[in-house]
Amino acid sequence: MIPEALISSIRSLISLSEDEVDVIGRLFKKRDLKKSEFFLADGQVCKYAGFIEKGLVRYYINADGEEKTYEFGQEHNFVCNYESFLPQTPSTKIIQALEDCALWQISHADLQVFYQSVSGGERFGRMVIEQVFVQLLKALTSLYTDSPENRYQKLLSEHPDLLQRVSQYHIASYVGVKPQSLSRIRKRIFSSK
Amino acid sequence: MIPEALISSIRSLISLSEDEVDVIGRLFKKRDLKKSEFFLADGQVCKYAGFIEKGLVRYYINADGEEKTYEFGQEHNFVCNYESFLPQTPSTKIIQALEDCALWQISHADLQVFYQSVSGGERFGRMVIEQVFVQLLKALTSLYTDSPENRYQKLLSEHPDLLQRVSQYHIASYVGVKPQSLSRIRKRIFSSK
Repeated sequence: MIPEALISSIRSLISLSEDEVDVIGRLFKKRDLKKSEFFLADGQVCKYAGFIEKGLVRYYINADGEEKTYEFGQEHNFVCNYESFLPQTPSTKIIQALEDCALWQISHADLQVFYQSVSGGERFGRMVIEQVFVQLLKALTSLYTDSPENRYQKLLSEHPDLLQRVSQYHIASYVGVKPQSLSRIRKRIFSSK
Repeated sequence: MIPEALISSIRSLISLSEDEVDVIGRLFKKRDLKKSEFFLADGQVCKYAGFIEKGLVRYYINADGEEKTYEFGQEHNFVCNYESFLPQTPSTKIIQALEDCALWQISHADLQVFYQSVSGGERFGRMVIEQVFVQLLKALTSLYTDSPENRYQKLLSEHPDLLQRVSQYHIASYVGVKPQSLSRIRKRIFSSK
């Protein structure tokens, strides 16, 4: 059964009739990912947009062998690399499960069915892509322009919960330093408080 | 009178009745920009999305006093910094006219009227933002990861017309080098052909 949280998440943007809820229930399919499996591997076309019922993923770029984590996704977030999904071209970004995940995903073709058969479907699509757009630009701009200290501070204030769930290794990759430098940053921040 | 090219550009994505064309004609207002005036200045909220009837603009970031041009827009392109326009927050990007421009612009509030009063309006909005999203990510990724040579080569193959219209100063800023280095790149490329 499609999770109530997915329907609520859609209903937070548009209204849905019971018939439309049934249609949506048939368009999204369950997919489980084990920890460290890929939702989207390097060079693959992103064929699905998913909704995270349970679990945690990270988004990263493989820059000449160095992994740059630029975003995390968790319960009740949508997960997708729209840059690959929208034009259906190979992805330069990678999405990996950091915990066992329960996802509900919709294919690119079925999303077009959603747009056509749900009365507010196009509106929902527009608003989601607008949100993703603004959020991704912030994430990428920060990746390229913020200092490691700044990135750690922002993570601390915006996602304190993630610090408990994500390994030091992946937090260091997000912050943009080696794991040993991360502990220096933590010391500086916490001793100045 | 709203230009036929703007209506055609919308009709390339959705169908429009004559009544809807009239509505659109009232929502878009004319705006002229002189060469080097700003469509959007640093720190301003981007209040309008525009359609370029005539002219040329550049998009750039001011990074500690150094201007990084990451995109150009010309006739029959839409012009907007959606990152600021969508959430109506101050812009970190700047949009400047490189030639005298004739624009037709719609305010954020009137765009919501467009979405509600044009039957395919939401669909149009979704598709435009999808295109902008994919294009902007390409532009920003290239800015941060491509070599100056690569960027010049791409500009040469994708927008040969722009090389005639844009000053060497702004091309150098787009490529990511000082103007004197640009002539070295040009020499290398053209002597190896």
